[in-house]
Amino acid sequence: MTAGDEAVGDVGDDVRTGACAARRGPLHGVLVVDLSRVLSGPYCSMVLADLGARVIKVEPPGLGDDSRAFAPHAAGGSAYFAAFNRGKESLALDLRQAADREVFERLLARADVLLDNYRPGVLARLGYPRETLATRWPRLVHASISGFGQDGPYAQRTAYDLIIQAMGGVMSVTGNEGAGPARVGTSIADIATGLFAAVGILAALVERRADPAVPGRFVDVAMLDCQVAMLEHALLRAQLGDPPQRIGARFPTAAPTDAFRTADGWIVIGAVTEPQWRGTLEALGLQALRDDPRYAGVAQRVANQAALKVALEQVTATRPTAHWDAELAARGVPCGPVRSMAELLADPQLAWRRMLVDAAGLKVAGNPVRISGYDTPTARRPAPALDADRERLLAEFR
Amino acid sequence: MTAGDEAVGDVGDDVRTGACAARRGPLHGVLVVDLSRVLSGPYCSMVLADLGARVIKVEPPGLGDDSRAFAPHAAGGSAYFAAFNRGKESLALDLRQAADREVFERLLARADVLLDNYRPGVLARLGYPRETLATRWPRLVHASISGFGQDGPYAQRTAYDLIIQAMGGVMSVTGNEGAGPARVGTSIADIATGLFAAVGILAALVERRADPAVPGRFVDVAMLDCQVAMLEHALLRAQLGDPPQRIGARFPTAAPTDAFRTADGWIVIGAVTEPQWRGTLEALGLQALRDDPRYAGVAQRVANQAALKVALEQVTATRPTAHWDAELAARGVPCGPVRSMAELLADPQLAWRRMLVDAAGLKVAGNPVRISGYDTPTARRPAPALDADRERLLAEFR
Repeated sequence: MTAGDEAVGDVGDDVRTGACAARRGPLHGVLVVDLSRVLSGPYCSMVLADLGARVIKVEPPGLGDDSRAFAPHAAGGSAYFAAFNRGKESLALDLRQAADREVFERLLARADVLLDNYRPGVLARLGYPRETLATRWPRLVHASISGFGQDGPYAQRTAYDLIIQAMGGVMSVTGNEGAGPARVGTSIADIATGLFAAVGILAALVERRADPAVPGRFVDVAMLDCQVAMLEHALLRAQLGDPPQRIGARFPTAAPTDAFRTADGWIVIGAVTEPQWRGTLEALGLQALRDDPRYAGVAQRVANQAALKVALEQVTATRPTAHWDAELAARGVPCGPVRSMAELLADPQLAWRRMLVDAAGLKVAGNPVRISGYDTPTARRPAPALDADRERLLAEFR
Repeated sequence: MTAGDEAVGDVGDDVRTGACAARRGPLHGVLVVDLSRVLSGPYCSMVLADLGARVIKVEPPGLGDDSRAFAPHAAGGSAYFAAFNRGKESLALDLRQAADREVFERLLARADVLLDNYRPGVLARLGYPRETLATRWPRLVHASISGFGQDGPYAQRTAYDLIIQAMGGVMSVTGNEGAGPARVGTSIADIATGLFAAVGILAALVERRADPAVPGRFVDVAMLDCQVAMLEHALLRAQLGDPPQRIGARFPTAAPTDAFRTADGWIVIGAVTEPQWRGTLEALGLQALRDDPRYAGVAQRVANQAALKVALEQVTATRPTAHWDAELAARGVPCGPVRSMAELLADPQLAWRRMLVDAAGLKVAGNPVRISGYDTPTARRPAPALDADRERLLAEFR
């Protein structure tokens, strides 16, 4: 906690006094017990915490959440862990020990949500099969994230983000023309699964708050399902005889829509209408191409997109991205720079939106869900050290 | 609606009789008025509809939602539109006409949620600035999706998915080594923004159901913010002097973790531990490499990953993907095939999970959020024709 920063929520004070509700978020009062590790589950509970939920991480004693050891590292430990566990509390419990199970069960008795991302069957072997949870804590919403789902032929397969991107189809349509499949450069399968899990948990809470007789629901979210749910029209195209290919940054149905090399980087142009096509030629000083029969209409431009790209890049490569961005935008052509991480860190819009927040002394993405009546803190209670909240939690949950 | 299919929800009947709640989803009773077009907004309201919310699409008369004209097309019209608008109702209203505004306002009087993805300022120019909405319908949760946010220096820039992928940084880290930036082969910026918007809407509903005195919140979600929120540790790495690059399907910190060519496609291998490395060599019959000093430990394997890839692909290219998948999995090596859309359509796990559902006679992804007590329908009320529900809605909302 950064002392004296108005925007920082102090979970400890808040829990004890009930104060600060007006600035904590709409999920204030929701208690999440989080058994999850690494990314999909912690991302889900980070989203809930950012919106005001109280999240207690229950971690194995010793090393805790595996991602506490993940690179990159900063002064205080894993910056990776710090990024996704801000604002949470930590309690180390060995669920194979009777005394620790008692503490865990006292947490469950007051929790609204239990979240895990164990491989299917592990929680049952720890003595908490679904039926036990439903019987003993009938109001508890329980969300389980898994690679492939709680059952089915693949249920016990290993699921890393890399594997789900491959098996879920996104890798087959991502990458440069003629090259091998490329992974999306961020763990999109984990992250999207965390978001779908948050949606499921919140939907179950909406229902429960409307009707206290409703049982706590079990929310079963699989990474493979979530990855497939993001394929947009790729499955449709395959069924209609036009399966999508890897085509770099292009769109298959309009041109020029692609990334073009500039003097200092790349710019994307998305000219899908005739006025946008004419605006592109004007911005680049290529009005001569307007009468070129190879580019007379969108069908011709798509058919000759390779030659068109060469012609455009001969011009775009002569000046920096910012020049072309301004010229194209002034003519109503959809466009934008392909930005590096360094450029994002200096971006005025992200600064305006307060989207870069502190984690372990570094900048990470903040909460993209802005809700009126709540502020947008640029610092939050930092990620907890393993078992950091033990004494306070044992005193509270006894 | 597919007559006689038990699993199909008939929104019309449901609305009239209040029946079927047990099989509709946890958001039964939530009414969403949806002004949004194309993908980010419609994806959000699809997720809500799949979980039982009632969604009324308010579309401009004439052509309706722009995506009604989007490829690919099937027998009954745009399969693209059908995929993301299943289970919704349609009413065509011209918000510049007094009579239609009255109808719209009667909808708002009974709605829980208003969703739009207009460019900032458009809704105000239509006569519904935020203050008016908050004053006249104080309980209404209003979510606005925009490219860059409701304000700030970029607020009026054009935001297509391609542009947000570029400006949001994911494109700079996606693609093959040495090649230009590649777009994620699905509109991930639109889709993720729809998911974050759903999270915000549901969080506001959770709050409102707990406390009737809480005002309807305004949820402001920007595509750029959401794209940045999915960068995982890329921003951190840039700040620590190790900015991420485009490296195809590789991981930078372990090897072999990549996609490898097989006799009939590609397989990903994610061998991050020593036992997984040894298992990979065994599966491929390459035990001789175990004593090769170039691959003696993870640091050496990363340093020599290019040579290692050649050595492994000489073997993997000799047999089909399924062979290597079985051999690797049997030895506990994380692995999986890079699957095409055709392979996904035939996948037994997706069939087991009932993840492929019908839209306009084609298969699309269903709802990946499974909630106990509700079934998993493989067919839903189809996407509506423009204005299809006019008479019934005018009679209901009068």
